[in-house]
Amino acid sequence: VLTPPKGELCVTTDQVVEGVHFVRPGFTWEEIGHKALAVNLSDLAAMGANPLWFVCAIAGPRGLTLKKVRALGRGMASLARRHGIALVGGNFSSSPVLTLTLTVMGKVPRGRALLRSGGRAGDLLYVSGTLGGARAALSGRRHQAHWRTRQNTPEPRLALGLLARSFARAAVDVSDGLANDLGHLCEASRVGAELVLSSLPIERGATLEEALSGGEDYELILAVPPVKAPAFEAACRRAGEAIARIGRLVTGRGVVGVGERGPRRLEGGFDHFRVER
Amino acid sequence: VLTPPKGELCVTTDQVVEGVHFVRPGFTWEEIGHKALAVNLSDLAAMGANPLWFVCAIAGPRGLTLKKVRALGRGMASLARRHGIALVGGNFSSSPVLTLTLTVMGKVPRGRALLRSGGRAGDLLYVSGTLGGARAALSGRRHQAHWRTRQNTPEPRLALGLLARSFARAAVDVSDGLANDLGHLCEASRVGAELVLSSLPIERGATLEEALSGGEDYELILAVPPVKAPAFEAACRRAGEAIARIGRLVTGRGVVGVGERGPRRLEGGFDHFRVER
Repeated sequence: VLTPPKGELCVTTDQVVEGVHFVRPGFTWEEIGHKALAVNLSDLAAMGANPLWFVCAIAGPRGLTLKKVRALGRGMASLARRHGIALVGGNFSSSPVLTLTLTVMGKVPRGRALLRSGGRAGDLLYVSGTLGGARAALSGRRHQAHWRTRQNTPEPRLALGLLARSFARAAVDVSDGLANDLGHLCEASRVGAELVLSSLPIERGATLEEALSGGEDYELILAVPPVKAPAFEAACRRAGEAIARIGRLVTGRGVVGVGERGPRRLEGGFDHFRVER
Repeated sequence: VLTPPKGELCVTTDQVVEGVHFVRPGFTWEEIGHKALAVNLSDLAAMGANPLWFVCAIAGPRGLTLKKVRALGRGMASLARRHGIALVGGNFSSSPVLTLTLTVMGKVPRGRALLRSGGRAGDLLYVSGTLGGARAALSGRRHQAHWRTRQNTPEPRLALGLLARSFARAAVDVSDGLANDLGHLCEASRVGAELVLSSLPIERGATLEEALSGGEDYELILAVPPVKAPAFEAACRRAGEAIARIGRLVTGRGVVGVGERGPRRLEGGFDHFRVER
């Protein structure tokens, strides 16, 4: 039973599933707890919301001991404390596959939430941090330890989301891959996008393909009107938020990547229900 | 992005998992959708809350076609419409096991939510409807068709919850079994309970054991102070809400059933993480 905030309530739900979003023993229990909350907080970040509360439903096998649940809880609690979000309820169920489903609630001043649908042709596109590291961690190549934190303990960009609320017209987080999630923003905003491939902030050692369609980076994609771009870039510099300008929204549909060999249509990223042919 | 209600916000999350809360082909897809929402609405009913919104996270195998998802949606939509609750978001993930995890939000006037913790020694205990049918449906005995709706399409007692807000001091719904869920109410209220076994409204053809510990009936257990009992019973009669007086809260701890052969301590019900020895 909660006293609702002034302004508006942002609600979003996301989940992590064993074998899909994490594997054992590739993740510690603490890391699974962290990631489950982080992927949800990332959705609040993309709305420019201040975290308030969350509920947590855990479905797991009978071997899920209290000790393991406590470790999941520690991973969540440490991230929750840093971002001032309180666990207010939850559920336990048995299940053959460990699944953590969280619903997070946050607040924004009335009419100030960042949406996917606010972008317009001409807006400049920015992305935070680096891309491709989370996918590279799963590649089996060397340097996996270096990428491991990107895959196992992603950091939701909440401070950037709050800052961007004053400048950006639309936002989305990178969960299924840059091209894919940017595509969602474009569809919702009824525009297209052009990415300058050489400008992508690729994680050290990751590939262009991993940066474009790897997913799970939990960085923010922001569409900023050109007139606000200098002030936005200056505010990010002051706040120590790393951002890169990677392209712009255009009239039309679809996401196009412009590289040395000319433009190419970008597709894909992770599709949970892709049918293998 | 939602405009919060006046008063207080009630938030609760519950889930249904294939092989635990439903089996295929024992349930139609519509029934799975219905049950997923019903078990959540039942939690709002137990708080005396008015439903507002829900989010729905579906994790399922790649064979979960759009046609099946639409049928899940139809089952949810029909129940949602009847109770005036709106789907405001959700998530899809792949998973080897079909799992529907919903978070529902409702409203109550400030300070009026029914809690598990409000009961006091001396309060009379009531339960709505009938008990044991949901479990009997899984027993393999004859008459399963008769019990099927209790197992597959439970009806959340929202109208009764609203009515009870004016009379009851504490409430809980029967999801894991009467003895078990009443035990939760007793723990939260720091009291014990005495059930008169002969007064339990057992579903036709179900056994006492199924009524006591079968679970999934999604009826409400209500603790009403004796001074308000006559008015509560009269209000239920007028509203056409079937309730039965089944015992009372007492000082002490634990749930005791009083039958022909004297009192016995009741235990159990469904424990998702019971360790088999």
